[in-house]
Amino acid sequence: MNAPVSPIERLQLELPDLDWITDQSRVARLSQDFSWFSPVLKRDLQGKNADIVARPRTEEEIKRLVSSCARYSIPITVRGGGTGNYGQAVPLQGGVVLDMSGYNAFLWVKPGVGRAQAGIRLVNFDREAQASGWELRCVPSTYRSATLGGLFGGGFGGVGSITYGPLAAAGNVLGVRAITLEPEPQIIELRGTEALLMHHVYGTNGIVLEIEVGLAPAHPWLESIVTFGAFDSALNFGDALAHASGIVKKEVCFMASPVPDYMASLAEYLPQGCHAIMLLVAEFSEEPMLELVARHGGTVTFRKTAEEVRTSNRTLVEYTWNHTTLNALKIDKTLTYLQSGFTAGEHLEQVRRMEKLLGGEVLLHAEFLRNLAGQTTCTALQLVRYTTEERLNEIIEIFRANGVRINNPHVYVLEDGRAGGDLPADVMAMKQRFDPAGLLNPGKMRTVPQQPV
Amino acid sequence: MNAPVSPIERLQLELPDLDWITDQSRVARLSQDFSWFSPVLKRDLQGKNADIVARPRTEEEIKRLVSSCARYSIPITVRGGGTGNYGQAVPLQGGVVLDMSGYNAFLWVKPGVGRAQAGIRLVNFDREAQASGWELRCVPSTYRSATLGGLFGGGFGGVGSITYGPLAAAGNVLGVRAITLEPEPQIIELRGTEALLMHHVYGTNGIVLEIEVGLAPAHPWLESIVTFGAFDSALNFGDALAHASGIVKKEVCFMASPVPDYMASLAEYLPQGCHAIMLLVAEFSEEPMLELVARHGGTVTFRKTAEEVRTSNRTLVEYTWNHTTLNALKIDKTLTYLQSGFTAGEHLEQVRRMEKLLGGEVLLHAEFLRNLAGQTTCTALQLVRYTTEERLNEIIEIFRANGVRINNPHVYVLEDGRAGGDLPADVMAMKQRFDPAGLLNPGKMRTVPQQPV
Repeated sequence: MNAPVSPIERLQLELPDLDWITDQSRVARLSQDFSWFSPVLKRDLQGKNADIVARPRTEEEIKRLVSSCARYSIPITVRGGGTGNYGQAVPLQGGVVLDMSGYNAFLWVKPGVGRAQAGIRLVNFDREAQASGWELRCVPSTYRSATLGGLFGGGFGGVGSITYGPLAAAGNVLGVRAITLEPEPQIIELRGTEALLMHHVYGTNGIVLEIEVGLAPAHPWLESIVTFGAFDSALNFGDALAHASGIVKKEVCFMASPVPDYMASLAEYLPQGCHAIMLLVAEFSEEPMLELVARHGGTVTFRKTAEEVRTSNRTLVEYTWNHTTLNALKIDKTLTYLQSGFTAGEHLEQVRRMEKLLGGEVLLHAEFLRNLAGQTTCTALQLVRYTTEERLNEIIEIFRANGVRINNPHVYVLEDGRAGGDLPADVMAMKQRFDPAGLLNPGKMRTVPQQPV
Repeated sequence: MNAPVSPIERLQLELPDLDWITDQSRVARLSQDFSWFSPVLKRDLQGKNADIVARPRTEEEIKRLVSSCARYSIPITVRGGGTGNYGQAVPLQGGVVLDMSGYNAFLWVKPGVGRAQAGIRLVNFDREAQASGWELRCVPSTYRSATLGGLFGGGFGGVGSITYGPLAAAGNVLGVRAITLEPEPQIIELRGTEALLMHHVYGTNGIVLEIEVGLAPAHPWLESIVTFGAFDSALNFGDALAHASGIVKKEVCFMASPVPDYMASLAEYLPQGCHAIMLLVAEFSEEPMLELVARHGGTVTFRKTAEEVRTSNRTLVEYTWNHTTLNALKIDKTLTYLQSGFTAGEHLEQVRRMEKLLGGEVLLHAEFLRNLAGQTTCTALQLVRYTTEERLNEIIEIFRANGVRINNPHVYVLEDGRAGGDLPADVMAMKQRFDPAGLLNPGKMRTVPQQPV
């Protein structure tokens, strides 16, 4: 008698109609994300693969998969587009990678609100919503491949956060539909603050099925590059534009020299050694934006209307946020990056001080935004000329000693990253409720819920 | 031979087709504005009347009037809806009141931008723009009677400034068409920063014919009143809502007890002694707004959808900004008011400190907004139990000694008010260029331009 020998095989037999991926190279690829941006994570996460990947297309398929995994105690790692940088999608203890990209229906759009299944790619969400005059409030630079569930589970915000703040700001996420990882899975709608307890914990405290988000008016966005001869002029222009309440905008990205030199495919617009601001403002705000450029001594080297962007299918968005890092890594493999948050009001001073202290080794790439408290400030995704892990940690400590918050992107355990210590009790309570057996990518969260007696 | 004896009579003879108002009581009424809010201005401006009022309907009529006045050296005082509080529309040395309300065509609307003649009432501008999905970014509570030219010439911002900042923030006013007061008047388009040199100087350095403004998406605005038992809870809720980047909003008004008790027509929604926040948020932001209310222990006592507001033709807007003062004055004639600006970041502390120091005599009514620098803070239009001018000035000094900026609304000379001293050189240069003979409401501006040699 040839009884199935492993829980994974039992799973496949029990759910033969599911779209399974078993080919080892494909499974390996679907067990990776962009954590290779970090030489540390690349080393630490090497070889961590799922046993199998499932790509369900319906809620019913997800429910059956989840039920079986709960009964056989098989770990599940939820995956969106695999564009995360923290090993979000890397299964630490094997099991099933739950690839959500097939569960991708756009559900509805109303004025200011839209809802879709978690696996929808952001570009597709926007295409649907824009037909009604609306679009996502903030998207990562990876919007072509990233999913809505991935943005919610592992993202922060991005292009648009200069107006709407991070995804976690009240009103940006209105609700999620989530499923418990239990033999008899429950499907529950969480609203507002409660929904946000599943945000940015990488799918470790619940599997999200649908997401309802606040939308922004889909303005025609003009894309421009403005270059400057001096670091301070570029920084001050970026800050002034970021604070200009009457200039409607979606993106203000500052690349200090020599970062622009790495953007090879834009070289004709970025004179060697320049400091550059890449920006998206509404076309109707171009005139006041240009006045601001002139006042700060900038030069507009690139200008594309919304229509030109649409027809060319190329956008500056794919040079901002972590695409800056990606583009630089294409040129110089020895680079890595950091993520830092500056104190609103002191941010310009902090940026200048750090440039003085570490310029040359740490290359400034800042993104202006409204923080969770609603203040206009900047964050940075600095490029770092990587030498050793020790030096990287030294650099992190220098930032921290200067009052700059670092969200270390070179660790993969939740408590070591942005959470910076214990996870909040309400986040853990959600874990207890939605993953009582601790099967969601075990190891990603150090703390595990109390087992029910 | 009966030759005309006065320049005014000559003016009438020269321009017989103009819509002249000569009836003394009507001229007197059209020489007044809402400066009676201030007992000091009421006394100081008493009896200051024009000799005649002209109400032109075309640019050509304005041009001929201006030319004649220049030739006969007749002062002109420009008037919009007469809703100002600083004696903007009060002619200090007689002459002609140029009532712009007949010059009121809506010119055009494009995505994010609209343009109209200066005399258009704001309510009519919005009606036209809203048909295309757009509306004014900020309006005063007097939007039904105030004109676009009046808002530009004598206003600050208002409902909407919580998102777009004051009218003076770059991008809110894109351009104006203005006419010089000369025998051969020139008509000139001023853009951006240059246009703003004519902003908030009460029509003393140029006559504005048309105004082009940045527009906001016309969202369906929900109107709510939230009441609180404690001053601090209401203040903190207002501040949290003001800072909530993901909650789309148009108005956050804080009336500390006993101010709500004066809003007689809303008494059923304002329990005696309550502290109240009146707010407009987009209907799609209601859910996160209500979560914020719950977190701060507030009670929603009033809720009207955009459609309910539209059909009832009653709006909370007409209880905010200086309508709060107006409503309170209906109940208690001994009240007057102040205008103050708090320092962003320290504003809550300053508000609490001033309440402790002067509560009872100065009744807090604050309006949250983004200031010119783009920071979220609040301004206040406090009610003051008026006793004497000396005590009023003492109160002003107490505010100033505590770091709170006061724009004294009890003075009528420009340099004594918000300008606080000399007018900027570029504002004066504009005066020189557009009113070389100093005929625009002489006396309103203490400094007069150099006469050309």
